[in-house]
Amino acid sequence: MVEAKKPHLPSAPASESFKRQARAAFESLRDKLCRRLEQFETVARFQQTPWKRTAEPKQSDQGGGVMSMLCGDVFEKAGVHTSTVYGQFSEEFRERIPGCEDSPDFWASGISLIVHPRSPRIPTAHMNLRMIATGRSWLGGGADLTPMLERQRNNETEDAIVFHTALRGVCDKHNPDYYARFQEWCDTYFFLPHRNEARGIGGIFYDYLDSGEREADLAFAEDVGAAFLQVYPRIVEAHIDEKWNEEERREQLHRRGRYVEFNLLYDRGTIFGLRTGGNVEAILSSLPPLASWS
Amino acid sequence: MVEAKKPHLPSAPASESFKRQARAAFESLRDKLCRRLEQFETVARFQQTPWKRTAEPKQSDQGGGVMSMLCGDVFEKAGVHTSTVYGQFSEEFRERIPGCEDSPDFWASGISLIVHPRSPRIPTAHMNLRMIATGRSWLGGGADLTPMLERQRNNETEDAIVFHTALRGVCDKHNPDYYARFQEWCDTYFFLPHRNEARGIGGIFYDYLDSGEREADLAFAEDVGAAFLQVYPRIVEAHIDEKWNEEERREQLHRRGRYVEFNLLYDRGTIFGLRTGGNVEAILSSLPPLASWS
Repeated sequence: MVEAKKPHLPSAPASESFKRQARAAFESLRDKLCRRLEQFETVARFQQTPWKRTAEPKQSDQGGGVMSMLCGDVFEKAGVHTSTVYGQFSEEFRERIPGCEDSPDFWASGISLIVHPRSPRIPTAHMNLRMIATGRSWLGGGADLTPMLERQRNNETEDAIVFHTALRGVCDKHNPDYYARFQEWCDTYFFLPHRNEARGIGGIFYDYLDSGEREADLAFAEDVGAAFLQVYPRIVEAHIDEKWNEEERREQLHRRGRYVEFNLLYDRGTIFGLRTGGNVEAILSSLPPLASWS
Repeated sequence: MVEAKKPHLPSAPASESFKRQARAAFESLRDKLCRRLEQFETVARFQQTPWKRTAEPKQSDQGGGVMSMLCGDVFEKAGVHTSTVYGQFSEEFRERIPGCEDSPDFWASGISLIVHPRSPRIPTAHMNLRMIATGRSWLGGGADLTPMLERQRNNETEDAIVFHTALRGVCDKHNPDYYARFQEWCDTYFFLPHRNEARGIGGIFYDYLDSGEREADLAFAEDVGAAFLQVYPRIVEAHIDEKWNEEERREQLHRRGRYVEFNLLYDRGTIFGLRTGGNVEAILSSLPPLASWS
């Protein structure tokens, strides 16, 4: 498990209206992403399943979320989930999370996307944006790409270039330091030490973002989402008419096995979610429809 | 991750000759298991791959092991691994492992078997035996069965009855208390809290066994191995001629997904091995050839 350092965050708690604004932004992005991905499918549509959080200690209302899942011809398995949850952190988490010195109360809202295309030629994609509020508040998220074929696992491919360029554009618009930091953070985070290999070709990853201008931080998150909404469909389109063979399918299933290893052995979100009474189906919906270790 | 309580073990260190005896027992059992499983296959044979341990700090000799893997018609993926490794535990492990108060030196030898049959009608099996020596020494191990089909996931099936009866027989021969304790330990250990379900139908699991009669403890381990060698082939034979359908195959792949979740999220041996410079290929060879989360 990757443990994050607990940073010092100076800002004051977020207002209720700002929380509503962040939540609305994530849910609006969810709708756009689902509609855009559905355009590639002839029949399949996202199925939405709402859920409620029921962690210990039980309360009348702890929030919940909506799972949106699609199993189609182009996308073998795609999930776009939003959730807004609140309550109290356990003692274990209080010690590790900023702003919990005076109170265990937390509020968290976010969107999480994972797409496992059927074609081994189309890279798997992951995107996540979130806002957390305790005594402090901050934003986090990122987007990264995992090509399935060995020959695609480098930054010289057209896919890699358009993906990184899109994310660099968003970062540079907001802060000249963001891209270098967030790209490196992504490479460090999405790494499998036991295999000594990267999960994919990276992207950006950031957490504990609290620049002092909350509206700007949310605008950055929205821009990351908007950039992903533009660039990933472009990568899908580039490969959608390509034929693939059984050898490529085998390579894809093998690569997906490594994806499973990362998510279950190291992913903070997965482990955090499973230990805090998150929605197991939503958390583990990131796992691929089929994977091999042969 | 399941953390074991650190028990008090009163016995003296094991002699070199006893260590050799334990290692020889595990390697002899490995040979018998491989030959027995091969009898079900027309063409496929176990392929052996020796490996050497190279953990930090590097030494001239830290032991190693032999991976034996078979991919066949009956057994889609089977691994029977032995290893004998030695060196020094890291500070982190010293604190958690008995007998390391005066020295970080350890010696460990063991055998580990995992069989993923191709037929969804034939249960997946796991068996493991090991001896650890630090300032103390003890034995551990067990065997458990994971049927793939929902209708087989109970203790009323013929498979479950013969499996549990064989293990009860071994336990009762050695100590009237063993079976109840080790069966319960197995059920507690092979459990997926996030799914609130058992991995399979259980068997036995034990650790830190140091009865004061070391020869008897090793004889118990050998008898567990011998019982498994008898009973699992009997379960394979019971189903080998049964036809299965696509729906059963889907159920098997789904159940194997849960097997992956257990091994990567909770299995002590897997996490221990990955963190101590074990052989990644051998450790993760327990993962199924194909699994689904659809």
